[in-house]
Amino acid sequence: MAETSEKERRILVAVDEGEESMYALSWCVNNLVFENSKDTLILLYVKPPRAVYSAFDGTSYLFSSDITATMDKYSQQVAESVLEKAKRLCNNIQNVETKIGNGDARDVICEMVQKLNADILVMGSHGYGPIKRAFLGSVSNHCAQNVKCPVLIVKKPKDA
Amino acid sequence: MAETSEKERRILVAVDEGEESMYALSWCVNNLVFENSKDTLILLYVKPPRAVYSAFDGTSYLFSSDITATMDKYSQQVAESVLEKAKRLCNNIQNVETKIGNGDARDVICEMVQKLNADILVMGSHGYGPIKRAFLGSVSNHCAQNVKCPVLIVKKPKDA
Repeated sequence: MAETSEKERRILVAVDEGEESMYALSWCVNNLVFENSKDTLILLYVKPPRAVYSAFDGTSYLFSSDITATMDKYSQQVAESVLEKAKRLCNNIQNVETKIGNGDARDVICEMVQKLNADILVMGSHGYGPIKRAFLGSVSNHCAQNVKCPVLIVKKPKDA
Repeated sequence: MAETSEKERRILVAVDEGEESMYALSWCVNNLVFENSKDTLILLYVKPPRAVYSAFDGTSYLFSSDITATMDKYSQQVAESVLEKAKRLCNNIQNVETKIGNGDARDVICEMVQKLNADILVMGSHGYGPIKRAFLGSVSNHCAQNVKCPVLIVKKPKDA
C-alpha cells in the first residue's frame, strides 16, 4: 500500500448531530486515512430544508421573516457546531475541509460526491432496529445505490 | 494511522464470478489493506443452493445422484477458480485466507461476518441500472443493513 499512500484521495464524510456519524468519522480516521498522506478529508453537514422545522404534522406554515431569520441562524449554528466537533476528531489529519449543504440529505450527499470529485463516501448507517432501518436507513441505502464511488457504511456498535 | 496499522484487522471480501467483485477486491487491496500489516484478508465465495442450477423457470427438478454429483463438482471447480483468481490479486498481502460458503449469498455473507469475527466487509454493489439495482443490488443492501461491522460497497466504474 506504499504506492497508494502517495495518492491524493478525497474522502467525503457525511456528518450530522447523531453519535453514529461521529463514530463513522472516527472509524474512517483510524482505518482509512493515512496520517502523513496527501488524503483530503471533506466533512459535509447537510442542513435540512426549511419546511422541515415546521412540518411536524406533515404540513408547513408561513413564518414572518424574523422567525425564518432566527431559524436560519439556529440551523447555521447547529451546522457549525457539528462540523467543529467533527474537526476535533481529525486533529491528526493534515488536510481537512468542511462543507455545509442545504436540502434533502440523500440528494445533497450524492450531488456533493460528484461535485467534489470524492474518491470515497463515508457515512453512518442510521439504523439498528427494523423501524429505524426502514425510515432513517434510507439515506445510506440511497447513497450506496446512487453514487459512483465506493461507499463505506459504518454502524456504531451498541457498546461503543 | 501508524497505530492502526499495528491492529490485526480481519477484512472479509465477498467475491463471485463477476468483474465487479474483483474490482472491489483490488480497490480494497489498494486502499484499505496495509502491505506490512497484520491485516488478514478473508476471501469468501458463496456457492448458490443446488436448486438454483435447475430453476431457470422458477421450478426445480429431481436429478439422479450422478447428475447432482457432477453439478456439485462443477460448482466446486467454479468456487476454486474464482478464489484462485482473487488470490492472485492479493499477492502483496501476507495473510490471505479463503472460505467457501453454501446457500443464499445474503444469508451466508452475514453469517460469515459474525462467525469469522470480521472487522470490515467489502463487496461489489452488483448494480448500475435501475433493474439490476432492484434485483441484484439486494445482496449488498441486505448485508449493509444486517451486519454489525462497517461495510464497504465498491462499484466498478464504467471505464475500469
